[in-house]
Amino acid sequence: MPRIALADLERLAERALRRAGASASMARATARALVAADACGLASHGVARVPQYATHLANGRADGAAEPAVVRSHGAVALVDARCGLAFPACALAVDTAIAKARDLGCAFVGVTNSHHFGVAALHLAPVAAAEMVGIAMGNSPAAMPAAGGRTPIFGTNPVAAVFPRRGAAPLTIDLSLSEVARGKLMVAAKEGKPIPPGWALDRDGRPTTDARAGLEGSMLPMGGAKGAVLALVVELLVTALTGAAIGSEASSFFVDEGNRPRIGQAFLVVDPAALAGRDVYVERVETLVAAMLADEGVRLPGARRDALAQAAARDGVEIPQPLADQLDRLAG
Amino acid sequence: MPRIALADLERLAERALRRAGASASMARATARALVAADACGLASHGVARVPQYATHLANGRADGAAEPAVVRSHGAVALVDARCGLAFPACALAVDTAIAKARDLGCAFVGVTNSHHFGVAALHLAPVAAAEMVGIAMGNSPAAMPAAGGRTPIFGTNPVAAVFPRRGAAPLTIDLSLSEVARGKLMVAAKEGKPIPPGWALDRDGRPTTDARAGLEGSMLPMGGAKGAVLALVVELLVTALTGAAIGSEASSFFVDEGNRPRIGQAFLVVDPAALAGRDVYVERVETLVAAMLADEGVRLPGARRDALAQAAARDGVEIPQPLADQLDRLAG
Repeated sequence: MPRIALADLERLAERALRRAGASASMARATARALVAADACGLASHGVARVPQYATHLANGRADGAAEPAVVRSHGAVALVDARCGLAFPACALAVDTAIAKARDLGCAFVGVTNSHHFGVAALHLAPVAAAEMVGIAMGNSPAAMPAAGGRTPIFGTNPVAAVFPRRGAAPLTIDLSLSEVARGKLMVAAKEGKPIPPGWALDRDGRPTTDARAGLEGSMLPMGGAKGAVLALVVELLVTALTGAAIGSEASSFFVDEGNRPRIGQAFLVVDPAALAGRDVYVERVETLVAAMLADEGVRLPGARRDALAQAAARDGVEIPQPLADQLDRLAG
Repeated sequence: MPRIALADLERLAERALRRAGASASMARATARALVAADACGLASHGVARVPQYATHLANGRADGAAEPAVVRSHGAVALVDARCGLAFPACALAVDTAIAKARDLGCAFVGVTNSHHFGVAALHLAPVAAAEMVGIAMGNSPAAMPAAGGRTPIFGTNPVAAVFPRRGAAPLTIDLSLSEVARGKLMVAAKEGKPIPPGWALDRDGRPTTDARAGLEGSMLPMGGAKGAVLALVVELLVTALTGAAIGSEASSFFVDEGNRPRIGQAFLVVDPAALAGRDVYVERVETLVAAMLADEGVRLPGARRDALAQAAARDGVEIPQPLADQLDRLAG
């Protein structure tokens, strides 16, 4: 596997997205976010997505010329319209808007509508941590999971992320999807012809299955059973009902070339600790909780592994599988 | 089991709390909330808690004379100090403050510090739904669950609730704790001498156990494994680091008579759909999602069962076990 410096990988991804029809700013924001995902070890949400995004740009599922805009702004809330472009410039605009509002008013809730795949949820929150604020990010995705008791996929896997800055240390970074496992694990099992544990998926008739292929044609199951399903409902409602975005079952899968513009939604909550109990109290409470966690052998701080990988990647670059490197080279022309 | 009208039960609970030292307003707010829990079928968080609260008032773990106050208010955020009283008047103040701010500014985040057990999280959100807004409530509790990979309880079971009003129908009401099961299920199994399934609890040495008694001395496990544990961390940080409240491992159990003032925290987020995509879009999106859910046989809307029980209870009253009725009578004098 070729190892490549992050800056070079970013340029390569950016060129490929430009050639597929993305505007200069969309290509730049997207390439930067994908490479950041590769850097922290999340290759499934890294430049491996460039071919998919390029196809969506080419066949109209995403509009490369779209300019995201704040279409509603009132007090501590705002609505950003991604206008069916790739999600990254719209999410960056939403996060910047939320930080500015939270600086004025103590908190802000900003939604994004008519959006697309937003990659690693937590990465959108880096500017929030840099502003010494607490942030939460969430989004829906094309239908993958049924409601509690149901058999048909309605909700996305609905990632949720949170960032809590620390003084003199990397922020605590939480990032998870609300499915029991990532779809990628079913893809790997299907490829290897291995069974999957019960609790991961339903087949297309809504029956529990241990057959990875049947699961891929059916539904992913939420983490934690019925509780995970209602958490997925909460995320789905926050990012669609408040924004006007499409619910999971209205959006075509990202993994097919043809299909509609997904028009899914995202939302960002930013809270300024200085406006509540104050920054010193915040820092003391975070460090007390961190100390309690680290006193328990076997506990690792969330985000610590990603941070370590990202530091190594900044120095050493990342390894990209040869077929992907070749594909990116072809797309970049 | 005697059946009792809700108003009579409220008066009985109120008298018992007054006699134990609660102020008139604290007793009234607490009695109303506990009876509302009984009405919707959640007896474990209903008037069955009166003896526990009365003991805490009597031995100083809760201050019956406390007057909650908004101690910080800035833009769209505020901090309420419960001043170590029972939680209900403080939470009501926080929710009213959040609604007023959200009406002005589109959203609000209000925290509560120096608080106590806040009962059924979702019940605090009824005024939010009545104001046609979206609400989220969360709180921590005395240490019950370890961090991901840990063996020692640090976080509470950390309830999370959400309410999404509908037009011409009861709101969607989501309410869950982040433990795999409620502690009450272990208590029942311990009493009956029955084993518990793996995944519910750890013993006091942090080893997985199927012995209910050993689990009660150890830790509850979070829903959904490591993902639930990080969600519990997010709630713990939001309600303590932003408010100055105690983390779970600093608070003595509610289930012992002696112990410290728990000083735990709660937080409420309120968002006005009118300030984002607008009320009509909100209603259309909610109804589209509801229709998709109900088209899937076997799916029931969250909160529907509680609503039906509450309607029946308003008409017919609720049944209270005879020993509890006797105890309440004694406490009420």
